[in-house]
Amino acid sequence: MNPYTLPDAELERLLGEDLPAGDATTHALAIGDCHGRLEFHARFEMVVCGSEEARRLGELRGLAAVGAAVASGTALAAGDRILTLEGKAAALHAVWKTAQTLMEYLSGIATATAGIVAAARAGNPDCSVVCTRKNFPGTKAAAIKAILAGGASPHRLSLSETLLVFAEHRAFLSETPAQTLARLRRRWPERPVVVEVADENEALAWADADILQLEKWPALTVDRLQRQIPGTRLAAAGGISAANAADYARAGAAILVTSAPYFAVPRDVAVTLSALPAA
Amino acid sequence: MNPYTLPDAELERLLGEDLPAGDATTHALAIGDCHGRLEFHARFEMVVCGSEEARRLGELRGLAAVGAAVASGTALAAGDRILTLEGKAAALHAVWKTAQTLMEYLSGIATATAGIVAAARAGNPDCSVVCTRKNFPGTKAAAIKAILAGGASPHRLSLSETLLVFAEHRAFLSETPAQTLARLRRRWPERPVVVEVADENEALAWADADILQLEKWPALTVDRLQRQIPGTRLAAAGGISAANAADYARAGAAILVTSAPYFAVPRDVAVTLSALPAA
Amino acid sequence: MNPYTLPDAELERLLGEDLPAGDATTHALAIGDCHGRLEFHARFEMVVCGSEEARRLGELRGLAAVGAAVASGTALAAGDRILTLEGKAAALHAVWKTAQTLMEYLSGIATATAGIVAAARAGNPDCSVVCTRKNFPGTKAAAIKAILAGGASPHRLSLSETLLVFAEHRAFLSETPAQTLARLRRRWPERPVVVEVADENEALAWADADILQLEKWPALTVDRLQRQIPGTRLAAAGGISAANAADYARAGAAILVTSAPYFAVPRDVAVTLSALPAA
Amino acid sequence: MNPYTLPDAELERLLGEDLPAGDATTHALAIGDCHGRLEFHARFEMVVCGSEEARRLGELRGLAAVGAAVASGTALAAGDRILTLEGKAAALHAVWKTAQTLMEYLSGIATATAGIVAAARAGNPDCSVVCTRKNFPGTKAAAIKAILAGGASPHRLSLSETLLVFAEHRAFLSETPAQTLARLRRRWPERPVVVEVADENEALAWADADILQLEKWPALTVDRLQRQIPGTRLAAAGGISAANAADYARAGAAILVTSAPYFAVPRDVAVTLSALPAA
Amino acid sequence: MNPYTLPDAELERLLGEDLPAGDATTHALAIGDCHGRLEFHARFEMVVCGSEEARRLGELRGLAAVGAAVASGTALAAGDRILTLEGKAAALHAVWKTAQTLMEYLSGIATATAGIVAAARAGNPDCSVVCTRKNFPGTKAAAIKAILAGGASPHRLSLSETLLVFAEHRAFLSETPAQTLARLRRRWPERPVVVEVADENEALAWADADILQLEKWPALTVDRLQRQIPGTRLAAAGGISAANAADYARAGAAILVTSAPYFAVPRDVAVTLSALPAA
Amino acid sequence: MNPYTLPDAELERLLGEDLPAGDATTHALAIGDCHGRLEFHARFEMVVCGSEEARRLGELRGLAAVGAAVASGTALAAGDRILTLEGKAAALHAVWKTAQTLMEYLSGIATATAGIVAAARAGNPDCSVVCTRKNFPGTKAAAIKAILAGGASPHRLSLSETLLVFAEHRAFLSETPAQTLARLRRRWPERPVVVEVADENEALAWADADILQLEKWPALTVDRLQRQIPGTRLAAAGGISAANAADYARAGAAILVTSAPYFAVPRDVAVTLSALPAA
Repeated sequence: MNPYTLPDAELERLLGEDLPAGDATTHALAIGDCHGRLEFHARFEMVVCGSEEARRLGELRGLAAVGAAVASGTALAAGDRILTLEGKAAALHAVWKTAQTLMEYLSGIATATAGIVAAARAGNPDCSVVCTRKNFPGTKAAAIKAILAGGASPHRLSLSETLLVFAEHRAFLSETPAQTLARLRRRWPERPVVVEVADENEALAWADADILQLEKWPALTVDRLQRQIPGTRLAAAGGISAANAADYARAGAAILVTSAPYFAVPRDVAVTLSALPAA
Repeated sequence: MNPYTLPDAELERLLGEDLPAGDATTHALAIGDCHGRLEFHARFEMVVCGSEEARRLGELRGLAAVGAAVASGTALAAGDRILTLEGKAAALHAVWKTAQTLMEYLSGIATATAGIVAAARAGNPDCSVVCTRKNFPGTKAAAIKAILAGGASPHRLSLSETLLVFAEHRAFLSETPAQTLARLRRRWPERPVVVEVADENEALAWADADILQLEKWPALTVDRLQRQIPGTRLAAAGGISAANAADYARAGAAILVTSAPYFAVPRDVAVTLSALPAA
Repeated sequence: MNPYTLPDAELERLLGEDLPAGDATTHALAIGDCHGRLEFHARFEMVVCGSEEARRLGELRGLAAVGAAVASGTALAAGDRILTLEGKAAALHAVWKTAQTLMEYLSGIATATAGIVAAARAGNPDCSVVCTRKNFPGTKAAAIKAILAGGASPHRLSLSETLLVFAEHRAFLSETPAQTLARLRRRWPERPVVVEVADENEALAWADADILQLEKWPALTVDRLQRQIPGTRLAAAGGISAANAADYARAGAAILVTSAPYFAVPRDVAVTLSALPAA
Repeated sequence: MNPYTLPDAELERLLGEDLPAGDATTHALAIGDCHGRLEFHARFEMVVCGSEEARRLGELRGLAAVGAAVASGTALAAGDRILTLEGKAAALHAVWKTAQTLMEYLSGIATATAGIVAAARAGNPDCSVVCTRKNFPGTKAAAIKAILAGGASPHRLSLSETLLVFAEHRAFLSETPAQTLARLRRRWPERPVVVEVADENEALAWADADILQLEKWPALTVDRLQRQIPGTRLAAAGGISAANAADYARAGAAILVTSAPYFAVPRDVAVTLSALPAA
Repeated sequence: MNPYTLPDAELERLLGEDLPAGDATTHALAIGDCHGRLEFHARFEMVVCGSEEARRLGELRGLAAVGAAVASGTALAAGDRILTLEGKAAALHAVWKTAQTLMEYLSGIATATAGIVAAARAGNPDCSVVCTRKNFPGTKAAAIKAILAGGASPHRLSLSETLLVFAEHRAFLSETPAQTLARLRRRWPERPVVVEVADENEALAWADADILQLEKWPALTVDRLQRQIPGTRLAAAGGISAANAADYARAGAAILVTSAPYFAVPRDVAVTLSALPAA
Repeated sequence: MNPYTLPDAELERLLGEDLPAGDATTHALAIGDCHGRLEFHARFEMVVCGSEEARRLGELRGLAAVGAAVASGTALAAGDRILTLEGKAAALHAVWKTAQTLMEYLSGIATATAGIVAAARAGNPDCSVVCTRKNFPGTKAAAIKAILAGGASPHRLSLSETLLVFAEHRAFLSETPAQTLARLRRRWPERPVVVEVADENEALAWADADILQLEKWPALTVDRLQRQIPGTRLAAAGGISAANAADYARAGAAILVTSAPYFAVPRDVAVTLSALPAA
């Protein structure tokens, strides 16, 4: 499925943030060398994400994975096993919460993404869902992994690799849309020119763009515009959710742009940590 | 108010993640040297957080702050101005979304925190709210700033500096609670021993701990326990929200432990970016 | 022009690499507190790049820039002044070579890029030049700044944000080109599908791609293909240089893909360092 | 041969720069779990460098090396195999270009270095070649590995560990050469004092230095100086290349100081990526 | 014992600091591929610390550990073996001094800590020893590992997680101690309030704090205070050493706060490096 | 004096280690916005070091330096002022201990270094003192700054830039000393060849090296060797201290190699933090 895994240095940063100098409780109890098992299960239905990282977190602290881990992007039923780790109690306690929390947040995003994708496809099987840059600041790589796991793709990975013209750019220009489009295409020939337009007049003025982005337009208006300029791809943005995605897809939006999955509540991962006889 | 600010290297990391090689659209339009103004306002009521970082993001790209920025922790009404930055269009576009998104997420957390604190204090003016380690992985410093801005404090900043005994620790032990408490206190004498207990029997067995943590106990049961062992401080955890905080506070929980603020939806910050005459 | 500047942490890394513990010679001579001036000039014609970073390197060591620095992207004649820094001898010696070398490499890339862009535009004013990912490993941000300064744009900033189908991908597929294109467009709707093809038969099979990339095709063959499928944009790649860019542009290649600028010899920047009377 | 290898964190940085969020094309094609093989060969004669890092890049993404990799510093004939990696298509595509480009740049430097060393030794078997700090900024560790692989050594690894007196230092001094040399030797007793001199008069004035560095002197003048002060070691610098190295060596330069290898065009490494039956 | 190990990135930083571009001597001698063995022994009695890191340093350079390494926290007699590594001479020389120096410093701290702990326990078996933040700046994780290995715990891991009120805080306050304590407890309910007091009057005024910290008080005065306010825990700080720890423990100090272990002279680790026949 | 300063990123790392999320006590007391002054004085005689970093730590948290800071390398009498900072209480408390501790450790090293240098020069005014790599692991840049401030220089900044042949290298060789020296000089022509020898026979065998390093030789034996091979520079190493430096200098050791300054106890810096009227 989704082969990308956060690099070790990032995973070590997560562990370092959570235990900069070891686990005080386990150390003070002198139980670190005991042997145990840590198991992660889906508490509810979910599209899991972050299981590769959870496994790697364990390995970085000397734990052994028992059996394969479920791959990111897999749809799980409530109760399905995700990952089993075995080893010393000190390591089990060190990775427990970081692994759990990472999977919960990423699975929350992946599951919400999958819900919007399914809704959009119900409206129109060719409709695509892309997610914005509005992830929690500093978490882009993880967040992008999660939306890929859920079946969407990134709208703009960064400002350095896409052309998206806002009114806030046009405030500095005094030329025709045709001139603007020509300049952009000559300078950055391999990226589509996306233009955010506020109303139908603006949309018609910029109809030669590759994609028009429609921020918080009603689905009805999207539909009307799509009939006027059927050759221009339309991207509906702003307030897109699983509840309205099908409507926009039916209205002719080829692309749905959404931030909603990033705000999903983490998806519960149940954990059991049990003692084993000495190895 | 809240004096702590994310260090420059972290802010540069956020900008670097969002524009690793400059802003393609602004560059391709050749408008980078134009002069403009970027203003941030609260769209709704909020406890703002991250305004110092937003201002610093601007400075790191050569923008000037016009007037003071509102301090993190300030309660704002809808429409209140937060920050004004002026300078080159390239810099305005470079910091716009990063500054906005950072303030939106952190203000979301701060506002939700303040709501729970207010509810708890309505139940009992001496009740305290603390937030867990369950922030989005990798965002601890920002998340802690936000909960401080909202009036809570961290439950455990890391595993390295607190003693919290779970059943998952006790599975490796075979001694009496008194022995465990004595060992912990001798080894880590300046930290309270917190013990998570599952039911009243366990609670009574561990009543000599400094704090008992009660995961998902009904408020009624908390109340009953508090009457039995009035000298032990009780921390209610699991499922705490603004809706039930007052109940738990009234039931005698001295401390409410919650993850809920981290899951708050970002709090909208309105942005206007306008052209100015050449400086 | 090009507003992007490498962040301080990267500039400090460069200084740290070149003088991890100060400048031994200046220290051993005990001349560090003397006052002096460091001037940088173009030795030959060049499109300068890196002057903002050179200035900032000086500031990071306490030097003052005298007058404005010439902006990256400016075409200079031999002898033109780029930047003047003044301050303590210890700082002047600390930044001298790092600033000079950085400007020389980046100006070499920018100048070579400008040469290919000019040649391409001579062949066809609408032809665009884009540069590959084949920069010296680890120098992407600086290298991209330089090709932007020279008038080109990045072909692929990274593998994470473009769709470029090689034969090495197709080896794993067993479906028709139409099926492949449909899948890619549905999954990644805002990126053009670029397909590298080896000969005219392959080109015709993939004519529905957005862009066909032609690796080391003779200009004549590009021309012939362009007449067959005039609606498909063609990108000529492999061996493109200032010597043949006009030919490919005339042959109908809308895009020239080149790595050549990265291999340019650094462009000489003359330096004078002189003593000043004590401040 | 050359045992030093870039650390994992640096290799991860290279991969992160090239695919910050996975490989979009491979992911969109859903071929990541297919099995394949990646082979690297020398396209032309070369002194290879970077093969250890290429192998490690593969391992960091879960690939297995098949057979040993050729060691950095080995002279290869056209067509010689360097390295074979096997594993999942997602990983093969992730490391392909980074591994190839790194080896190409480093082998270019190593091969050019070896050419100058061979030329110098043809002139005088005891002549030594050292390379300057003028590598691409930020790439010192890789560049030094490459010149070591080619048979040279670093002239100055950094300013913090060598004594090299330029006219730009002497501008701040008012004392005799003997006084300067005595001060330097007393303060930094284990480093030779190298002095760059502009002409024969200066050379004679500083003849008591350990090494005189002669920037862009004709070989004839080097020869004449060497006869005047046979006890002082002479280092010829500036414009040294494989074409003139033998002349300078014969003229009595004990040391040739050169930046030329850093500017070498990358040395082609041929790559084949092929599908294998499922493992 | 102490399961915490410095992360790989930190260990690579240590190696990178000591050999940024390989070992010149070993490389110049061309002996890097020879086979050898590196053994570490305690030269004198010691509580060892850092052996896990020493072993890992070897693994990061391809060496194999022969037999188990002694765990951090183990008391060793003079001559006891700590660790044996085998492999290529280049790697043996690369890790030798970094591994040795790290173990010597950390074992110095651990041994000194153990001495103070033993002294304190001789005075009072329930007395605890905690160490300050006064480690060598930048070495906190390693230093904390060492004091844990020696049987102490951290006094304050950072300013972000403890409440310690100095006179330097009170200079900004104008309220009663009771008011201050109430505010602190409401805001940070799970941390004890520690107050540093200068004399007995201050001590009595702040007797309701959880812990009183007594900086450089004579043991006699500690004893007198303890009798006056037996319910308040006392922490003796400033000038605590193995020589006086028992006195303070007997005087009723429940906690001894010390920086002394950080200043311990490194504890000698003997090293033998020997050649082996080719593998 | 010593112009080198630790870079901001390193100083931020120190602050981040000491207060990852702000200062809990100051925050909980709500005194962060009060105005105050922080003064640092030498408690005893010292060669100060780290004052530039202390000042910069203050600036990084918004404090203003009042008057100049005393430069690193200056000899101070007891009571001399080093630095005054003014600003908000939150910032004063944030930098207080980090600034103090850094200056105390570095001044300890600088003062100890100066003592050994003075002793050596008393024995022989031309004798030089160099310090080993045996600093606390991870603190090289700071430690080197301190020994430079004390008047010594680094023996080996790293393994990558010096040639020092130990018996542990020679165990892998089977050739004559002359052959070894020739190989080393040809490969690394600008570094002296230093050879550690165990006794006089070895010393005579390696008398053609540039420097012989004598580990723990009695001064008498150094003297005898120096008379036998007066043309070879001798470096006395192992156990060198202020107590015996003059003896070794008189015995003819041109260079004294010592680790002792790194083990010096931190040199006390007195701090006063006082409230000021609101600015």
